[in-house]
Amino acid sequence: MPPFRYVQAVRFGDVDHAGIVYYPRFFHYCHVAFEELFGASGYRHLLDERKIGFPAVHVEFDFSTPLRFGDTIEVSITTATLGRSSVTFAYEVTRVEDRAACARARVTVVAIDMRSFSPLPIPDDLRALFQGLDSG
Amino acid sequence: MPPFRYVQAVRFGDVDHAGIVYYPRFFHYCHVAFEELFGASGYRHLLDERKIGFPAVHVEFDFSTPLRFGDTIEVSITTATLGRSSVTFAYEVTRVEDRAACARARVTVVAIDMRSFSPLPIPDDLRALFQGLDSG
Amino acid sequence: MPPFRYVQAVRFGDVDHAGIVYYPRFFHYCHVAFEELFGASGYRHLLDERKIGFPAVHVEFDFSTPLRFGDTIEVSITTATLGRSSVTFAYEVTRVEDRAACARARVTVVAIDMRSFSPLPIPDDLRALFQGLDSG
Amino acid sequence: MPPFRYVQAVRFGDVDHAGIVYYPRFFHYCHVAFEELFGASGYRHLLDERKIGFPAVHVEFDFSTPLRFGDTIEVSITTATLGRSSVTFAYEVTRVEDRAACARARVTVVAIDMRSFSPLPIPDDLRALFQGLDSG
Repeated sequence: MPPFRYVQAVRFGDVDHAGIVYYPRFFHYCHVAFEELFGASGYRHLLDERKIGFPAVHVEFDFSTPLRFGDTIEVSITTATLGRSSVTFAYEVTRVEDRAACARARVTVVAIDMRSFSPLPIPDDLRALFQGLDSG
Repeated sequence: MPPFRYVQAVRFGDVDHAGIVYYPRFFHYCHVAFEELFGASGYRHLLDERKIGFPAVHVEFDFSTPLRFGDTIEVSITTATLGRSSVTFAYEVTRVEDRAACARARVTVVAIDMRSFSPLPIPDDLRALFQGLDSG
Repeated sequence: MPPFRYVQAVRFGDVDHAGIVYYPRFFHYCHVAFEELFGASGYRHLLDERKIGFPAVHVEFDFSTPLRFGDTIEVSITTATLGRSSVTFAYEVTRVEDRAACARARVTVVAIDMRSFSPLPIPDDLRALFQGLDSG
Repeated sequence: MPPFRYVQAVRFGDVDHAGIVYYPRFFHYCHVAFEELFGASGYRHLLDERKIGFPAVHVEFDFSTPLRFGDTIEVSITTATLGRSSVTFAYEVTRVEDRAACARARVTVVAIDMRSFSPLPIPDDLRALFQGLDSG
């Protein structure tokens, strides 16, 4: 299965005084793509009904091309490593206009019980979803 | 012509400690719709090539229904009053799931020359665009 | 009693593609000042222990001087009108460097029970706090 | 010389639907501390007058303790490695109330000429400033 891909616009207020995207916004773009992976209200359902959350515990990020207001980006998500409770996703941020590679990230999250904030084994349906996200 | 309409998702990070959308985010949602009015890279072109900007000078906002993560909203824009340099847009924020009215706003912006920040007459093509946004 | 005053810095990521503070950030600056009115962890205590919140229901804002990264602002809060459940605060945003008036706002909030989101009479201690915020 | 330290409050709008600080905000907290390293308007002067910027090129982040609204944090900055054009800062985010370690980061930035976005040797005065930030 291909990576999950989600297209977003760089917004007027996403930039900083240097005129490029304020770098913390890249993590927001990645999180938005992660939310979309579960569908429109799917992540809320996961959190509120099933009481499962995925807080980030480790992040690595490389920036290669600055983004500017008016650019359109595609964020792709693949599963890099899948453990019992944790999963590491690989993100690539590509500018749609010229396919420039803008950033690459690895974000490790841990499945937790939202009531106790203690780790949970990743449920089978989510495991299958994540396993499906390969770069092939 | 109908209002301009733009659909957005309430994001995981858009809320506050009360669990509802942090109210300054509503202004962001309205601005995102305003950016989309000009098309994907149209507002950048307006700012960077034509050197025309539209800073807000007056805002009035009424909130009626709190929004939560996972909601989807439609922001509509109509033109309330159109002056020589200024224009007042009326925004309505509606929750898509149940058509609940969530917020109404009036935002007055002034056309300025981006080099001097001094007011400009609204160019004819933009005047026509704004005139087209009525509630009919 | 004088207005409550809180000094803040305009941050590197607070601006937009026009190089000035993205206007939704002004509402954030005002909210930060409102949080500080209750002291470091006071607003959390109000929300979590006393289950009282103050969502905004109406906002009016006038912008007069654009702010830029590196500016320092003072946000002052006075109480304009105090009702049974609602209170309207008047905010003034002044640039510290030259005392330029940058924005004025009126923000009406309603005291609610955080469990039901229904209006509450403003408790006496908070009423006294708000009454103390006059322009004298 | 000790690390540079800067104390900040976790704000009402900094959290996410899980009730903890939205993780991209941690990068904002670190950036705010970085801005303060140069003094109130020092970073603007660096960018606008000396035309020197420090975009992030690589980030590593570990999260250990979730933060909540009402917490106060101290962000410390030390210099981990100092190259000709690049410098890696080590950040530690500590909750002031109980000295809990909340996050650790390494952020590598590159000195650039803001007009061309090409790398610059780090000027001597900034080199001295960064060299002074050790953990001793």
